[in-house]
Parts: sequence; structure tokens; C-alpha cells
Amino acid sequence: MDGARNPSDRSDARLEAQFAFLNEADRLKSVLRATTLVDGSRVENSGEHSWHLALYALVLADQAAPGVNINRVIRMLLIHDLVEIDVGDVPIHAANGLAHGSAETIAAEQRAADRIFELLPSDLRDELRALWEEFEAAQTPDAVFAKSLDRVQPVMANLMSGGGTWTTYNVTAEQLEHRVGVKIARGAPALWDWVKARAATFFP
Amino acid sequence: MDGARNPSDRSDARLEAQFAFLNEADRLKSVLRATTLVDGSRVENSGEHSWHLALYALVLADQAAPGVNINRVIRMLLIHDLVEIDVGDVPIHAANGLAHGSAETIAAEQRAADRIFELLPSDLRDELRALWEEFEAAQTPDAVFAKSLDRVQPVMANLMSGGGTWTTYNVTAEQLEHRVGVKIARGAPALWDWVKARAATFFP
Repeated sequence: MDGARNPSDRSDARLEAQFAFLNEADRLKSVLRATTLVDGSRVENSGEHSWHLALYALVLADQAAPGVNINRVIRMLLIHDLVEIDVGDVPIHAANGLAHGSAETIAAEQRAADRIFELLPSDLRDELRALWEEFEAAQTPDAVFAKSLDRVQPVMANLMSGGGTWTTYNVTAEQLEHRVGVKIARGAPALWDWVKARAATFFP
Repeated sequence: MDGARNPSDRSDARLEAQFAFLNEADRLKSVLRATTLVDGSRVENSGEHSWHLALYALVLADQAAPGVNINRVIRMLLIHDLVEIDVGDVPIHAANGLAHGSAETIAAEQRAADRIFELLPSDLRDELRALWEEFEAAQTPDAVFAKSLDRVQPVMANLMSGGGTWTTYNVTAEQLEHRVGVKIARGAPALWDWVKARAATFFP
């Protein structure tokens, strides 16, 4: 995907489609999450969250398993939440942990992916849709590491802001382990050990 | 930078430094820009702007010159505005176009880079600082393309939101060409032709 294509592909129709997608993506900046900024001043939106996660991948690359391709992880994280433009963010600890990953949510996210990626020229549509499906399936090493980062960033925000969504949703140590810890540990075991030790003070 | 390092490097001290940087970076979400969201509802912050630009690089990769490494461009764009945590965003059209790139601004940004990248372990500090300096110097093909995207995204926001900062700062067609167009055209000539045609209606 690097470098130039055939200049004839730089058509007006192609650019129209590329910008239709980029302008639609702008709406992710208006999707609000449950997690706050590190300073607790307001809740985070899914656009800035996606940036922060890509930076996590860049800075914590040494926590990935051998063979993980950090450039692919970064690309995955840049697009992983776009479906929230239609579906909204479903907090991991909301509805006693049952809303996130429900059949209804998954079906709605598939419809959102159909609509949003369809805005792109077909080659980019297929490429980014496949990358998003890979993230969702969480089976490849790249996706497993990306998922770990997606889980650890809100933990860090909660640690920094004095409890955050753990307080909002009355989360127990067991729920944190089950909903969050298992997925962080799957892709970045040392990272979970490290943040778990620091989270312990919030779960006496 | 992909894959695992020597496990002995996954020390507590290293992770402390990595998270000190990632937590400090969170403050970029509170730096406000002059440009609004595409829907005009509020001004954009530099964190979500950085995400949007990385997505621009992913989607508009075919506009880059041959040999441009899009993965490096994305990494550059993820970190390009971190110095604004200390310096703030300096709008391109503010102070009659004289504030952006002034000697004072450049010196302040160097001091900010010293402070912020120094939070990282030394290998990452050197790597990301060099990448930021490359972006600022705007000489390599990767940096030239990254700069083009950084200029074209606010143009698109202004187009979509009915004039935006062009109205705020009474920008003329000549000023747009000089402050913005030249830099977009340098890294992505077809892109400037395309947006310039669409901007014409705002500069009768």
C-alpha cells in the first residue's frame, strides 16, 4: 500500500470516495466513552482514544510477542472503533459486563462496518474491512496484541484518575480479572502483571 | 522495532518510563486547535487531529510520491504535535500568518521536545525525537508527504464546515496558496489541485 499507484487511479471519483470516508470518520471524535482523560477533566472520545492506542503500540512494541507486526497493529488500532459512529461505545463494565460483545452489539457493528467501509474505493474497502474483521476475531498475534492495548489503556486512565469506571460501575477484582485482565495477559502478559500490581490498591 | 526485545528489558523501570510518556501524551487531548470538526460543532483537539491525520495517511497513501514509506509517515503523524502540550497549537492563519514557524515558536517547541521525549527510555527517546525532527525539517519524502496531509486536513474541515478558519482570519486566496497550497502541492500535487478547485467558491 506504500508509494504511488497508477496515476490514472488518482481520479476525481476515487478522491471523492476517499474523502467521503475521511469526512465520515471525523464523527468518531463525537463518540463519547465511559473512561475519562488521565486528569479526570472529562470523558474521552473514541477518536482521541484511537490516537492514544496507536501511540501505545508505538511505545510498548517491546511487550508484543515475537513476530507481531507493529505497523499492522497501529493500522488496526486506527480503524478499530469506526463502527462506533453508528453503534456508540459500549463500556466494558456497563450492564454488569453483559452489553459489551452481546449478539445485538455484534450485529449492529457488522451493519455499521458495511455502511462505513463501503464509502471507500473497493480496494481500500476490502483492505480495511479485512483488518477490522481480524481485530474483532482476535485470533492472529497482531490482533491479540492490539486487543491487549485496547484493554490496558482504560486501566491506566482509571489508575491515574483515582478509580474512574471501576468506581462508576462498582467493579470487583474478579470482574476486572475476567473482563480485562485475561485479554491483556493474552497479548502482553508482563503488562498485565505490572498494571495489576498497581490496580490492587483500588480493590482492597 | 517490531516484536520482542530481550525480556530483561521489560523491567519495571522501563515500563515506568514508557507509561510516564504515555500518560503525559494524554494531555494532547486538551490542546485546542483553531479548526473545527467537520460538522462545525466545536473546535478540534490535537489528539484527535493526530488520529485523523494518521487515518488520512492510511487512506490517501496512493497520493504519495514513489518511495514514501507510509508506515513511517503514520508514526511521524502520531507524534508530530506532542510539543503542543507545552507550546499550544499555533494556528497557521493567526497573527496574519506570522506566528506559525516564528523563531520564538521553534525555540519553544525544541524545549518542549527536550522535556517530553526525555520521559522515554533512551532508545525510544532517540528514535521518536529523530522522527519528530525529520518531520519538522520537512526534507525527506516521508516528512514532505506528512506535512502535506497536515495542511490538507484543516482545508477539508473548512470546506465541510462552511469556511471555518478562513472566515475567522479573513484569509485571501493568495494567503491560502502561500501558507497552505504550496506545502500540500509539494508532497501531494494532485491533492492540492482537487481541494483548491473546491475551495475556490470561498474565495470569489
